Amino acid sequence: MAKDKKLVEAITSMEEDFAQWYTDVVKKADLIDYTSVKGCMVIKPAGYAIWENIQHELDRRFKETGVENVYLPMFIPESLLQKEKDHVEGFAPEVAWVTHGGLEPLQERLCVRPTSETLFCDLYSREVQSHRDLPKLYNQWCSVVRWEKTTRPFLRSREFLWQEGHTAHATAEEAEERTIQMLNVYADFCEEVLAIPVIKGRKTDKEKFAGAEATYTIESLMHDGKALQSGTSHNFGDGFAKAFGIQYTDKENKLQYVHQTSWGMTTRMIGAIIMVHGDNSGLKLPPRIAPVQAVIIPIQQRKEGVLEKAAELNAVLKAAGIRVKTDDTDKSPGFKFAEQEMRGIPVRIECGPKDIEANQAVVVRRDTREKITVSLDELAEKVQEILDSIQHDMLESARAHRDAHTYVAHNYEEFVQTINEKPGFIKAMWCGCQECEDKIKEDTAATSRCIPFEQEQLSDTCVCCGKPAKKMVYWGRAY
Amino acid sequence: MAKDKKLVEAITSMEEDFAQWYTDVVKKADLIDYTSVKGCMVIKPAGYAIWENIQHELDRRFKETGVENVYLPMFIPESLLQKEKDHVEGFAPEVAWVTHGGLEPLQERLCVRPTSETLFCDLYSREVQSHRDLPKLYNQWCSVVRWEKTTRPFLRSREFLWQEGHTAHATAEEAEERTIQMLNVYADFCEEVLAIPVIKGRKTDKEKFAGAEATYTIESLMHDGKALQSGTSHNFGDGFAKAFGIQYTDKENKLQYVHQTSWGMTTRMIGAIIMVHGDNSGLKLPPRIAPVQAVIIPIQQRKEGVLEKAAELNAVLKAAGIRVKTDDTDKSPGFKFAEQEMRGIPVRIECGPKDIEANQAVVVRRDTREKITVSLDELAEKVQEILDSIQHDMLESARAHRDAHTYVAHNYEEFVQTINEKPGFIKAMWCGCQECEDKIKEDTAATSRCIPFEQEQLSDTCVCCGKPAKKMVYWGRAY
Repeated sequence: MAKDKKLVEAITSMEEDFAQWYTDVVKKADLIDYTSVKGCMVIKPAGYAIWENIQHELDRRFKETGVENVYLPMFIPESLLQKEKDHVEGFAPEVAWVTHGGLEPLQERLCVRPTSETLFCDLYSREVQSHRDLPKLYNQWCSVVRWEKTTRPFLRSREFLWQEGHTAHATAEEAEERTIQMLNVYADFCEEVLAIPVIKGRKTDKEKFAGAEATYTIESLMHDGKALQSGTSHNFGDGFAKAFGIQYTDKENKLQYVHQTSWGMTTRMIGAIIMVHGDNSGLKLPPRIAPVQAVIIPIQQRKEGVLEKAAELNAVLKAAGIRVKTDDTDKSPGFKFAEQEMRGIPVRIECGPKDIEANQAVVVRRDTREKITVSLDELAEKVQEILDSIQHDMLESARAHRDAHTYVAHNYEEFVQTINEKPGFIKAMWCGCQECEDKIKEDTAATSRCIPFEQEQLSDTCVCCGKPAKKMVYWGRAY
Repeated sequence: MAKDKKLVEAITSMEEDFAQWYTDVVKKADLIDYTSVKGCMVIKPAGYAIWENIQHELDRRFKETGVENVYLPMFIPESLLQKEKDHVEGFAPEVAWVTHGGLEPLQERLCVRPTSETLFCDLYSREVQSHRDLPKLYNQWCSVVRWEKTTRPFLRSREFLWQEGHTAHATAEEAEERTIQMLNVYADFCEEVLAIPVIKGRKTDKEKFAGAEATYTIESLMHDGKALQSGTSHNFGDGFAKAFGIQYTDKENKLQYVHQTSWGMTTRMIGAIIMVHGDNSGLKLPPRIAPVQAVIIPIQQRKEGVLEKAAELNAVLKAAGIRVKTDDTDKSPGFKFAEQEMRGIPVRIECGPKDIEANQAVVVRRDTREKITVSLDELAEKVQEILDSIQHDMLESARAHRDAHTYVAHNYEEFVQTINEKPGFIKAMWCGCQECEDKIKEDTAATSRCIPFEQEQLSDTCVCCGKPAKKMVYWGRAY
């Protein structure tokens, strides 16, 4: 059992050091490997398979709303990046520059895309002529680069994978509708698939995207009480259209500017899954996103008939549409149990000679560790039921944790004390001035996470300056 | 009908100017758009959907052989690229270099991956310790950059999309087996899905991949008689393993070097589809790869019941698993027909008031233009049958074209005359010396495409130098 212990002991407990726990899980669950380029990581099979499932689920939802996929170049000429003033100011300090192609210097530097608004605008300026060409509903799956100073796997890396949707519409109303529609797609995806409850709202002007008129966000709460921006949807109005000259002739034959949106979700959601659901035994994957939903672990596998039965059960579960693997390696069962827990596989199915004799198997839930004895005659349907329960319970458990760590602050003293003593979301009223956001950030390192769609009137005055309050805001320290 | 004509007339005929015909189809079928960065293109929805289908089909086939997907960084430090001598010599002249991150110069230049052997080797050198860690069967879907001087959409662009598989094995035999296995996956995919017949063989030393021990290839013939390298699979032996120190302890506890392979297929296959199947009316997509397999074109669509019937038929075909669209725009039927042909949709289904009265529709094949009257009661099964026939016939037609353009040359005069007068593959004997390859290339611009697995003894002497022949080789001018 020495080996089993090694696997488990190597993890720092989350209560002791959450950041180290996170790094340990990422490594021990075999999700990533580091490389010699700082801030660039290898996403290993166990990690990439989660991303493939995210892609599959999101892509299907996008296409149901009429979105089409495209691919644009990874290089943006410096002059193109500079066309929209706010946008270039937001991104120029953190882009990687290509200066040489082959053996020769380039005439104009190319930046490796940090995001592709400028390229999509350039495309739309050629593609859109008439109201018949609208709307344009494009999305691209790709990697982007932002030269961050401090990096952490999945959460903040110099290169990361994402999708970026970019749409162009005839009217401001349609653009606003699409912005909210995609935010809802993200929110539903997070709750239904990732079992992560989110707060939907609007970013303050200080926190909105460079070049956007309005940025909407979904915010989730990690186990350590820090917030994570989990997906954003931007309404650009006609700002980019004016900078790039994207115009169409309307039904009255008049020239009009289009109204645009963009929206993105990234590999940081893998970090969210880890930090919302994980525990001191490792990763805990919601069944709907888990690359392997059930692992069969044969007990006393050298005894006659055990491996054969395991193979038979595997085939039965697979035929029922369950993503199943059998671990018939020569490791000890204890080691296999620890490994299943570390990798976050939602259920393990233990089956040995005695079980076979009794025509049963023991199904162990990863989330609650509950052991459920199941007749082999109804294994597939029972396992599916258990997976459904786990999916449901993980969302409820995450919601309960978030709600238990969401506080209200009525005055500044309460605010500062709460943020320092009780990590979590703080709901508090705000006057609408950036000065208060700046002061709160300087004093507490907390930022405005969003102005939630679901407003509450907690008091009449701003938690910071005491002037009349305009909105209730969710605050928190964030990744 | 002016508009219909415009769409068709805008294409140069392939007999007049094949290169211009190709460019016209690529643009008119709405597959790509150019950008302000030379050699980098936008892959538009109609083009990207083909790539998604290629990805889906290949990915499934890879996974069936045990391959797992990963994602590695797009940046390679210059020092890492230089670790394997032949490899760096092959790629350094055509890579793009990142020299600045944010506002600061980098300590070491990073190249944007032209291919990822060096990164995979770096990973394997950390991951592989014991024979228990083998084999490693990784694949990645990504974009790569090669700073080409002359570019053409899909065929040769500075950035392109591809997959690159990289495997590590305990023995030379296993590596060779995997190399051939993946070549066969590519060959089967091309024939079964893309309806493109291929010649399987081995590259000569002159034409093999930089750093490989052996490169295997599938070669296809385009409509203009030029060859296209359509997929390659490399056996690296232990060359990279020695350069990167990738060693494992075998069952006798001895240190051994791994044996590696890599294999790739790219977006250039979209170019192959165009150039193998297209005609003067535009693109012609094999049904298995076509994003839209059938388009319903309502005739006299303003008459009562026509659009309702079209919607009903659409639902029936969709339920039967056929990828179907209805074109109910206000364009004329003639324009819609021309558009369906330009975009290469395998069948169109015409249905107007008289058809509805007769409970029938007219199905028109894109490949043969044959019109088939089908009872609406059995529309789905008949359309599926027709799609299957098209798939089959397109492969046979491409094979017949290739065979009709494959020639034999017994002596150099015959060789030169054939290559100049009859574009196509030339089968000819070869002594095995690079001097002859060089001479043939200089004299005729033809290169050795491959040493086919299916050898024929055409004569005893090399077609170029007259010395004893070792192998029969396929020669041709190539893209």
